[in-house]
Amino acid sequence: MGTEGQVFMNNEHIPDHKEGLKVSILLENITIIPMNGENSLIEKGYIITEGQFIEAIGTGQAPQGEYAKIIDGRDRVVLPGFINTHTHAAMTLLRGYADDLPLMEWLESKVWPLEAKLSAEDVYWGTMLAIVEMIKSGTTTFTDMYFFMNEVARAVESSGIRALLSRGMVGVGPENERAIIESRELVSRWHGAAEGRIMFWLGPHAPYTCPPDYMARVLQLATELKTGINIHVAETRVEFDDMIKLYGKTPVAHLESLGVFEHEVLAAHCVHVTPEDIEILKKHNVAIAHNPESNMKLASGIAPVPAMLKAGIPVSLGTDGASSNNNLDMLQEMRSCALLHKVNTMDPTVLPAYQALEMATVNGAISLGLGQELGRLQPGMKADMIIMSLEEAHMTPRYDILANIVYAAQAGDVETVIIDGQIIMEDRMIKTLNEAEVLAQSRRIAERLVEG
Amino acid sequence: MGTEGQVFMNNEHIPDHKEGLKVSILLENITIIPMNGENSLIEKGYIITEGQFIEAIGTGQAPQGEYAKIIDGRDRVVLPGFINTHTHAAMTLLRGYADDLPLMEWLESKVWPLEAKLSAEDVYWGTMLAIVEMIKSGTTTFTDMYFFMNEVARAVESSGIRALLSRGMVGVGPENERAIIESRELVSRWHGAAEGRIMFWLGPHAPYTCPPDYMARVLQLATELKTGINIHVAETRVEFDDMIKLYGKTPVAHLESLGVFEHEVLAAHCVHVTPEDIEILKKHNVAIAHNPESNMKLASGIAPVPAMLKAGIPVSLGTDGASSNNNLDMLQEMRSCALLHKVNTMDPTVLPAYQALEMATVNGAISLGLGQELGRLQPGMKADMIIMSLEEAHMTPRYDILANIVYAAQAGDVETVIIDGQIIMEDRMIKTLNEAEVLAQSRRIAERLVEG
Repeated sequence: MGTEGQVFMNNEHIPDHKEGLKVSILLENITIIPMNGENSLIEKGYIITEGQFIEAIGTGQAPQGEYAKIIDGRDRVVLPGFINTHTHAAMTLLRGYADDLPLMEWLESKVWPLEAKLSAEDVYWGTMLAIVEMIKSGTTTFTDMYFFMNEVARAVESSGIRALLSRGMVGVGPENERAIIESRELVSRWHGAAEGRIMFWLGPHAPYTCPPDYMARVLQLATELKTGINIHVAETRVEFDDMIKLYGKTPVAHLESLGVFEHEVLAAHCVHVTPEDIEILKKHNVAIAHNPESNMKLASGIAPVPAMLKAGIPVSLGTDGASSNNNLDMLQEMRSCALLHKVNTMDPTVLPAYQALEMATVNGAISLGLGQELGRLQPGMKADMIIMSLEEAHMTPRYDILANIVYAAQAGDVETVIIDGQIIMEDRMIKTLNEAEVLAQSRRIAERLVEG
Repeated sequence: MGTEGQVFMNNEHIPDHKEGLKVSILLENITIIPMNGENSLIEKGYIITEGQFIEAIGTGQAPQGEYAKIIDGRDRVVLPGFINTHTHAAMTLLRGYADDLPLMEWLESKVWPLEAKLSAEDVYWGTMLAIVEMIKSGTTTFTDMYFFMNEVARAVESSGIRALLSRGMVGVGPENERAIIESRELVSRWHGAAEGRIMFWLGPHAPYTCPPDYMARVLQLATELKTGINIHVAETRVEFDDMIKLYGKTPVAHLESLGVFEHEVLAAHCVHVTPEDIEILKKHNVAIAHNPESNMKLASGIAPVPAMLKAGIPVSLGTDGASSNNNLDMLQEMRSCALLHKVNTMDPTVLPAYQALEMATVNGAISLGLGQELGRLQPGMKADMIIMSLEEAHMTPRYDILANIVYAAQAGDVETVIIDGQIIMEDRMIKTLNEAEVLAQSRRIAERLVEG
């Protein structure tokens, strides 16, 4: 890029995407994976969008019409954009800062001290860095839990991506009251903003950081604001053992007893759960964000995902933050998920390609309460979709395009990204933000963070 | 590419790489990972090649000189090319043909019937397809075991990549005699060919396909030809149990008793090995090709790699064939290897980034008996190296470039590939072959294979 170290604010060069780009688009001659079942693939089909929505999907020749944009889909496949249901976006600023360490040493001597140096502006640029990476790897919606969430929301709004946001709420220490006040303001300000692209929920961090009395206040607020709950649950064995010691209950059973699951809940991790916990999660329609690569890298354990899916729980996929992954690539996450559970169960038929793709799309939408709007390609649903190239060697031959996507593809195969009917990336150029500036700002912040 | 379906043989457009491209190259202003220890990284350095070899490496300004080619390495890192120590290259033609099936059903009803249809020419193009994919993901040397090996060698010779080849030898059935005769011819013809880029060993397939009397003949031939042995060992639990039943010994102990380990041996998989087996492997300096993704996908099990490494065994990395992976991407293999063993041992400090990179480079070279020629960047060693871009969002920031490469990079970051002092790929354009033709031929073959 040759722009590193150079400051520029050329927002005037960026088209106003709220006006210019949201048009009627025709994709033609394209392979379509609508995610309406394993055999729903359409060869040589077309998709028409109108405003935010998918208007029509069909096979063969598209109907005549006035299209502001026509995309030739030869040697291309279109599928729903990926929904990353658990991350901490601005932690891209910590990518590679500390790896291969024991968990507590990693947190206490590395992650937390660096995070303490982050300003609101840093979080804005770190989130933008994550958004660039996510768009370039086919993610159209992400779920975030972090701090300085006004800045995160601003980044989501201006970039054109879709997100479910929450402010991390910790019930111990001086932060606890501020978290309640800010969360109330944030939900009021941002839930439903950016033409509906932003959702804002509450983010009580975890059972071990939110004691029962604090959790009760969070739940009261959730009832008052009619909002869902995004929470870490049973990520580590230590958490599991501590909850048993403190409350005589597993983390899942403990949260049930507090009434958390009376709300709409997206529970991240759920690594250490018992068969009884799985029943509890199913009974209350709790959605689970599975983070296989983070759980592997931090050696947290392996969540019993095949059992959860078998129980009918909508298990979706998250990357977790870039400091424990170290990328936000949902293609890699799907692949790792399928491979990990095959070897863990010693059964190669477990978690076939279609199911992995379902976790990254359909189940992601369900996890966010958006199963009727996102995650599949269907007339009337939001036009969130990605176009991938099938031309490269690693995608050849094409016996099974689903298997190619889940087991062989890489982020660079994602060429075009459409979110809410808007072309966000075309031929790998992001149209709604200045990528070079985001990279330059992120590098500058990283240099400052490790200074003295 | 727009060339699919079109036949062309425009070899006249491909420069004769034996003459034109092997020149003195200067890489300057570049970050260097020489793989001489964890702290050997050089910032703003230079590398000079002369013919096949690395002539000089240093920091700061390069000496004045006559360079046929100067590459500016700003925002780039150079490291040894990856050495894929176990694959079946032409199985790219089966990529995605059959996934998520039980092992024997996969082999008997899918893989073997399709392989039976492969002609010599098919194997040539399938190998070329693999070579394209490998070069584009930074692999400079691969180890192959397959059939129609004259065609494989021809593909290696013309593409400019480096390879250790072996013809699969099965000791049961009518093939067994032919395998001996052909292997003898192949070693004579190809070992040391292509200016030393081709090595040819013997490839007795596995303990369960090569009974003791046949193995004895193979070993006799190895002694006569002074060549090494490439073999599958203890890939599945079934193999382990069968060997115990048949010979009262583990696969590793059985091979030791046959005298196999008196030879130079590269043993693929070694998933089901006991602590005693590890001692045997160490005692005989057996090199191991670990294939984490194939072992995960086929649910073969998890090899005790940390224990093997601790014992001092040179464990390297292989992708296995594209029908059980489904790509040949060594960046993904390193990442999966590190992540898998962290979670399997429940220790996040196991297999840190540097060690994973060492497996893919240094240990790969040692596994092939080329530890003094390949796997590190050092004056006097062969100039096999890759240049990766550090510019993309997923490689930002740059606290730890090693961690970025192992945990965050993707194949598309590999920009330039130099093998044996020759620029094979520059700015992702392969110079020694016609990529569009390789893809078109591969697709045509795939169509034929599934016809009727």
